[in-house]
Amino acid sequence: MEKALKNKTDNRGVVESGLTHECGVFAAIGNEEWENSNEIAQIIMIGLQALQHRGQESTGIVTSEGSNEFNIEKGMGLVKNVFTNESMSRLNGYMGIGHTRYSTSAKSTVVNAQPFVVHSMHGSLAVAHNGELVNASALRKQVLDRGVGLSTYSDSELITQALCLIPPDGEVNGPDWPARIRHLMQWAPLSYSLVIMLKDRIYAVRDPYGNRPLCLGKILASTTEMVNGYSDNILDKPADGWVIASESCAFLKITKYIREIEPGEIVELTKNGPKTIDIICTPEGKKLAFCIFEYVYFARPTSIFEGQEVYNVRVHCGRQLALEHPIEADIVGSVPESGNAAAHGYSLESNIPQGELLAKNSYVGRTFIQPTNRLRQMNVALKFSPILTNVRGKRVILIDDSIVRGNTVGPIIKLLRKAGAKEVHIRIASPPLKYPCYMGINIPTRDELIANAKDFEDIALKVGADSLQYLSVEGLVKAVNKDLKIKKREVGHCTACLTGEYPGGLPDELRW
Amino acid sequence: MEKALKNKTDNRGVVESGLTHECGVFAAIGNEEWENSNEIAQIIMIGLQALQHRGQESTGIVTSEGSNEFNIEKGMGLVKNVFTNESMSRLNGYMGIGHTRYSTSAKSTVVNAQPFVVHSMHGSLAVAHNGELVNASALRKQVLDRGVGLSTYSDSELITQALCLIPPDGEVNGPDWPARIRHLMQWAPLSYSLVIMLKDRIYAVRDPYGNRPLCLGKILASTTEMVNGYSDNILDKPADGWVIASESCAFLKITKYIREIEPGEIVELTKNGPKTIDIICTPEGKKLAFCIFEYVYFARPTSIFEGQEVYNVRVHCGRQLALEHPIEADIVGSVPESGNAAAHGYSLESNIPQGELLAKNSYVGRTFIQPTNRLRQMNVALKFSPILTNVRGKRVILIDDSIVRGNTVGPIIKLLRKAGAKEVHIRIASPPLKYPCYMGINIPTRDELIANAKDFEDIALKVGADSLQYLSVEGLVKAVNKDLKIKKREVGHCTACLTGEYPGGLPDELRW
Amino acid sequence: MEKALKNKTDNRGVVESGLTHECGVFAAIGNEEWENSNEIAQIIMIGLQALQHRGQESTGIVTSEGSNEFNIEKGMGLVKNVFTNESMSRLNGYMGIGHTRYSTSAKSTVVNAQPFVVHSMHGSLAVAHNGELVNASALRKQVLDRGVGLSTYSDSELITQALCLIPPDGEVNGPDWPARIRHLMQWAPLSYSLVIMLKDRIYAVRDPYGNRPLCLGKILASTTEMVNGYSDNILDKPADGWVIASESCAFLKITKYIREIEPGEIVELTKNGPKTIDIICTPEGKKLAFCIFEYVYFARPTSIFEGQEVYNVRVHCGRQLALEHPIEADIVGSVPESGNAAAHGYSLESNIPQGELLAKNSYVGRTFIQPTNRLRQMNVALKFSPILTNVRGKRVILIDDSIVRGNTVGPIIKLLRKAGAKEVHIRIASPPLKYPCYMGINIPTRDELIANAKDFEDIALKVGADSLQYLSVEGLVKAVNKDLKIKKREVGHCTACLTGEYPGGLPDELRW
Amino acid sequence: MEKALKNKTDNRGVVESGLTHECGVFAAIGNEEWENSNEIAQIIMIGLQALQHRGQESTGIVTSEGSNEFNIEKGMGLVKNVFTNESMSRLNGYMGIGHTRYSTSAKSTVVNAQPFVVHSMHGSLAVAHNGELVNASALRKQVLDRGVGLSTYSDSELITQALCLIPPDGEVNGPDWPARIRHLMQWAPLSYSLVIMLKDRIYAVRDPYGNRPLCLGKILASTTEMVNGYSDNILDKPADGWVIASESCAFLKITKYIREIEPGEIVELTKNGPKTIDIICTPEGKKLAFCIFEYVYFARPTSIFEGQEVYNVRVHCGRQLALEHPIEADIVGSVPESGNAAAHGYSLESNIPQGELLAKNSYVGRTFIQPTNRLRQMNVALKFSPILTNVRGKRVILIDDSIVRGNTVGPIIKLLRKAGAKEVHIRIASPPLKYPCYMGINIPTRDELIANAKDFEDIALKVGADSLQYLSVEGLVKAVNKDLKIKKREVGHCTACLTGEYPGGLPDELRW
Repeated sequence: MEKALKNKTDNRGVVESGLTHECGVFAAIGNEEWENSNEIAQIIMIGLQALQHRGQESTGIVTSEGSNEFNIEKGMGLVKNVFTNESMSRLNGYMGIGHTRYSTSAKSTVVNAQPFVVHSMHGSLAVAHNGELVNASALRKQVLDRGVGLSTYSDSELITQALCLIPPDGEVNGPDWPARIRHLMQWAPLSYSLVIMLKDRIYAVRDPYGNRPLCLGKILASTTEMVNGYSDNILDKPADGWVIASESCAFLKITKYIREIEPGEIVELTKNGPKTIDIICTPEGKKLAFCIFEYVYFARPTSIFEGQEVYNVRVHCGRQLALEHPIEADIVGSVPESGNAAAHGYSLESNIPQGELLAKNSYVGRTFIQPTNRLRQMNVALKFSPILTNVRGKRVILIDDSIVRGNTVGPIIKLLRKAGAKEVHIRIASPPLKYPCYMGINIPTRDELIANAKDFEDIALKVGADSLQYLSVEGLVKAVNKDLKIKKREVGHCTACLTGEYPGGLPDELRW
Repeated sequence: MEKALKNKTDNRGVVESGLTHECGVFAAIGNEEWENSNEIAQIIMIGLQALQHRGQESTGIVTSEGSNEFNIEKGMGLVKNVFTNESMSRLNGYMGIGHTRYSTSAKSTVVNAQPFVVHSMHGSLAVAHNGELVNASALRKQVLDRGVGLSTYSDSELITQALCLIPPDGEVNGPDWPARIRHLMQWAPLSYSLVIMLKDRIYAVRDPYGNRPLCLGKILASTTEMVNGYSDNILDKPADGWVIASESCAFLKITKYIREIEPGEIVELTKNGPKTIDIICTPEGKKLAFCIFEYVYFARPTSIFEGQEVYNVRVHCGRQLALEHPIEADIVGSVPESGNAAAHGYSLESNIPQGELLAKNSYVGRTFIQPTNRLRQMNVALKFSPILTNVRGKRVILIDDSIVRGNTVGPIIKLLRKAGAKEVHIRIASPPLKYPCYMGINIPTRDELIANAKDFEDIALKVGADSLQYLSVEGLVKAVNKDLKIKKREVGHCTACLTGEYPGGLPDELRW
Repeated sequence: MEKALKNKTDNRGVVESGLTHECGVFAAIGNEEWENSNEIAQIIMIGLQALQHRGQESTGIVTSEGSNEFNIEKGMGLVKNVFTNESMSRLNGYMGIGHTRYSTSAKSTVVNAQPFVVHSMHGSLAVAHNGELVNASALRKQVLDRGVGLSTYSDSELITQALCLIPPDGEVNGPDWPARIRHLMQWAPLSYSLVIMLKDRIYAVRDPYGNRPLCLGKILASTTEMVNGYSDNILDKPADGWVIASESCAFLKITKYIREIEPGEIVELTKNGPKTIDIICTPEGKKLAFCIFEYVYFARPTSIFEGQEVYNVRVHCGRQLALEHPIEADIVGSVPESGNAAAHGYSLESNIPQGELLAKNSYVGRTFIQPTNRLRQMNVALKFSPILTNVRGKRVILIDDSIVRGNTVGPIIKLLRKAGAKEVHIRIASPPLKYPCYMGINIPTRDELIANAKDFEDIALKVGADSLQYLSVEGLVKAVNKDLKIKKREVGHCTACLTGEYPGGLPDELRW
Repeated sequence: MEKALKNKTDNRGVVESGLTHECGVFAAIGNEEWENSNEIAQIIMIGLQALQHRGQESTGIVTSEGSNEFNIEKGMGLVKNVFTNESMSRLNGYMGIGHTRYSTSAKSTVVNAQPFVVHSMHGSLAVAHNGELVNASALRKQVLDRGVGLSTYSDSELITQALCLIPPDGEVNGPDWPARIRHLMQWAPLSYSLVIMLKDRIYAVRDPYGNRPLCLGKILASTTEMVNGYSDNILDKPADGWVIASESCAFLKITKYIREIEPGEIVELTKNGPKTIDIICTPEGKKLAFCIFEYVYFARPTSIFEGQEVYNVRVHCGRQLALEHPIEADIVGSVPESGNAAAHGYSLESNIPQGELLAKNSYVGRTFIQPTNRLRQMNVALKFSPILTNVRGKRVILIDDSIVRGNTVGPIIKLLRKAGAKEVHIRIASPPLKYPCYMGINIPTRDELIANAKDFEDIALKVGADSLQYLSVEGLVKAVNKDLKIKKREVGHCTACLTGEYPGGLPDELRW
């Protein structure tokens, strides 16, 4: 296992202080009316802003006016900065796809910005991708061996060129894109949520394990009466258009949530609406494996997965945590804003009043350049200030959603103690992170994860807490399944980073 | 009165959707050790970030190395963008002052960025200012009539040139800066908190009414043991340097809160520490008039005014609101994050559980360009999403700190109703805003204030609430005074925007 | 023929006011000493600046440190703006290639910036290209049909992917790059001058017709005694490294001109120096076809082609023009600086004194936004001011190198007349441009070329000249051949734009 | 004298490799028709581009729509970059003034950009200035002593505040601006060319010595028939508006040269046209002192001073140089483009044919970062390439307009020799520069001027020339006066930098 982890580090070369999200995708299609305007691009732009938490490095939108000459705008940075009035004015078209990419290191350049666009023998093709191909190396070798030059290391280019290539057995050489997509899904079973645009249609594809989220919505400009959420009668209303998004939090006002794209499903969207083309199942004996950390950490609290609101799951996690690790205290609060929902649940279950313990210093981000010893002390935890009213003289419980490296919890505890807290109890609303992810989440290396530290037993002591407890894996799974609404196929969640059980196995190059 | 309000509009020409803060000031002084580095500038830069909520338009830092050639860096935008490694490298010096300015209209340019610096007959002078001169027009005429050309409309330039000018009676013509400051304070009694830097000293000045906040802190690099807050024994520890800030929330880690600058106080800071030079009293019969809206709205919750934490006052406001306007409900929440503390107070007093009702969409700021009818609907309330878990099927109380124009509360109520709220009760933790401010707060004109609308009685109906109630003026004053620690002189607060009672009278040009 | 021209327009969609140069390439290779610095990149950067006249749209440098991870910096704009200290600091390596691209329309983006880099099955590959593939469409179809997606319309990407692809007959599948290059040269015989970099070597390739220029130079840092120019004994001196450039004007100070790359030659440069791998001949019966407009218009006057300085050829053109079209006059001058050398020749041959007639207004480039009628008059010919001393009361001959659309000569004549010229005689040191170029020069469409205008006979009248004469095609060829030093193979020059005789035939899609 | 020079160095702190121009001013006034557009601003912008050679550091335009609220746009950099469509759109008004400032050091900031604008007791005031106040220190002390704070060290702010101040004797306190200008002219007799804008008029002012140039033009949009130059009947045509410029080269197409502003003249421009208000004479016994280096070096060749074209004077300088320092040679050329006119004169007088010796490498400006020894050799003279055709085997005469430090002529001579020149003779078309200028030209310190070097006798040897000769002071004066058309008052030219005879004496602080 150590070798695998080592390779993982080598490939990335980046050391982040937390987990990083892995991209958001969005697609929208209207009808003839939208053809000569950039309305669709504007809807995509707003949608990408709502998915910005999934990636802040670069972003792009590609639109089609029905021909093979797509309009493309990509750039480094936030959606609001890349899409100026000027760049938006170049994005006419009645359909389009967009992408927002996660932030990593200095190596990141606009070359890697998605969607990735190529001209193929059967017309233009644009691809936006969330996820990570577990067997990327094997697929990459196959593509290179066929004589294709690859200009980046990105999975998106790899997927795009793989879709263009005639499969070795020559079975697919015409413009039958669903066949090409099916073929790709057999080559590479996880993980991805894809939107693929041709000149007159969009395919939305989720990997057979359903590892990454993807959902369908409806543009209902003329109908403002229904509830923002899942509602039985929405499908009956005539649509002005359709949207696809990584999370339902991207469905704002005129775009309404309909349903998730099923694991393995290929949905084709045209002017005539969405149509399920196929559903590719997991290999025999393999369960579904939706990433459980989307519930815990990545997704916005208002997003809906598997029929339930993420906020609700997090409240259950907090309740479960209170059951597993109760403690007497005067007040329960959270590290804003990641622990808010769990703190609410803990408070409800324990009957300990909830209150704010820390104020976030929104603008204080900058640290010192060439700090002296005098200044170095200021560098940590400038981000939060204790709220004396709720802390001084109190026994406090502080809830957070997760601990990755453990280098921020210590300074926060110190802050609370200096502000006069009598006791500080830390409760983490997820189990300890122990293993790397090969399906799209940028988790630090094994050595860096505090849960793998030799003295993990004594972590409470180390960070200066009176007590520190994690939610159990079983507790997390219970919280996730409590209100689960969808029970179609054999339900399952990917808990690889917690348990080391990888749903699709390890990448080829990591086996030994 | 109407004429006054009209003039006010003409002068500003800007229509904002809320109140705007009016600047933050910061000053720091070290000793010989700091002379050849930019450590002081770094401390100021961090301090300005913590005061960024008081102004995001432009910012500047001016440092002195002991000579009349100050180092000056100013620019448009946020502190973190203006102060790059490159600009910081030009800010050596053992003392300096900084400023962050509020955002208004397109007219705003770097010319207006503070601190304002001039060469005078008695050496260089840098001034940073928070507040607004009530009698600016009269003072401006006096300065122009003396043959001085003014390059901006800013009060800061006016104050700076007034300090340089020989008073008409010739009483002050030498380099006696305290005398010049005293003279200015008689010419212009409110409102301002000033930091004034000469080559070898800084003056911190608060107007006689104490209308704007200003406080003193200590740099204690070598002592990290004390509580972050007010502590009796801090003054006994040897200081590495001293700081002045608009709010104590700017005292992070190595800088510790000591006390407020008194109303009318002139403090001189040199390498040898702070010294009170003089205290100028309000005119006979005039009470102190600290802006009550700093408690309600402007200040960060962790700041300390008059011996109490702002958060604490806001909790009392929420409690008082629960007493004044109780209602049966299932959950009480806030408009994040402005109503958080008051919601906590309301929950404590009413025993109705507190919970999050709305998630903030941090990145969704951009609106549509040339929106069609279809898109126009998306423009409002993209900023918040309802949290179904806490809203659906519930009777909810939504707390906010204030209503200015009333154009956002309506869409939020609609959002909650569409998400399935059974009842929506709005509670505002401050009284209705009715009058303009001439002391530094940019309040919309009388006509625009919803509290002055003809149908204000029916406001609940208008915005679609089941009920809507405000805290009373008496209730607010009670909340503010409940834990007040400082009782030196006749305490008083400026409530002009709520009551129309202006502590120093109306500006000259507004009387008729 | 008309259809061909129409297609040409459709493909480009751009209307320029003159001819546009078609890119410059540069390559440099040192030895072990250079490995850990960016010296090679600095030499390339200076070289690209000297080639900047061949393209100002975008530029790029790619360096190799000996591994397959190339360092890549590309950007829009001038060399001096793209290559900052920061970007240069990322360009370590002991060899590299660079490119500067011509400026076209708003469609131009950084995606098209060269060098083009891909990972292939046999390692990384970077390609920079000057020229245009006559049979691009056919080659493009072949590549797409093999299942490769192309992300741009650029010939460079096409060349790169064609090099990666296994030829259909499977003859080349190993890492034998010379074989792949040879194969490409058979697929696409013109036009290109290429530099192709692998991890440990660079190939310099010139098309069999020698249509675009390319030459070899030597880095002689330690030897500063020889003449800057062609010198017999330079090859005997030990080299510090080797360079390749589109024009010898790029050999400045420490880099010395050695010789041209021969038409069809493949030169391999390694740490051990340059080696001719192969020379591919033109098809049976086809002459060499070096672009005669490089002499007339594109190249810098100090560049050396076929053993002679470009300036010298231009002086001969001016002399020949004086012989073909003599006229009595008081002074002969040029449109600065394009006509300088020819004016010198005309003056020498005619014994009419040479003098400056026009001063260039270097900074006046900007035209009016939304001009009124009043302003519209100022828009033309702001670029030049007449020099009264030499114009007033004089009969002037004005020499220019070429006329493309003829829309600037008219206003210049008007300017001279208003300044008091008695007579204005225009002499053009090249023949009329009549036909499009498919080999890398962006010539306007047939309809836009003034030489194709119906009233071309009356052009002197139309532009307001007392007379206007062109050099004959024979005269131009004579001038070019007068001092020609290289007589190896059957010499020939491409005069297609003047005569319609295309050396390699028309592009496939244009035949019908 | 040494002290003076030292002070000069201290004040500037900048070491430039040549002389630097000292600003250009431009003003334009139209009539009612122009009120609601930015046409006047566009004319100013084009005019500033034509004056860009006088300063590239910063630029600004201020326009008036008839009220005291001026429109102001200023910025660092070139005119074409500062005045975007967006900034131009904010410059409505029927009159305005503009400025372009010279480039110095890193200390330069937008704060110093002109025009300088203030509100005074008698309305708004904008000032743009070319020149340097010889007695700036004394005037500065006077202004500071009156209690005015000065925010910069610029003469422009000083002039502006001096205009606003009530003179000590109280003689001018009303809005009599001409009286205030007259008063300033007595306080500060040189040097300046000023444009001063009030809400409804512009004053154009030239110092009594006429040290800096300034001229008047006419906007003749509807009349395009006359000669671009001085013409007797232009004044008879009805004007669309009027312009003022530092040099007549700024009068392009629709703006026509009328006459110079006389030394000491105050011209008032209103909607009704220009009117001479007063002419202030030099003190008794003092001659006029127009800067002779405007002819030699600064001005554009097409500008007209004292009734003659600058190019013409430079040709005379070249002729005179040929008479004073003849030499046998095969070709005479110039350092492009500064020596072009003089080379033309030398050729005409000597009958030695003129020809280009050097090609300018327009884009090669960038030098190496952290150059190694190997690279350092490339740093000098990248700017020029020898033209072999005219140099090889020839005896060449190279003409330049001046030598300042002498650090570029050496490398150029080396370049010519390496290119095969048999002999290289340098002829400088002006006398040696020996003394500093206090009237607006940034001349290096005495020690840096090559003409003050100990071994100046052997300069030819030092720089490697076969001979090197300067024009004599008498020869220069003769060339300037040869075709002089204006003989009104006692003509005189400032030759201080050549002779040390300062027309108005030395600045106060330099006397000892």
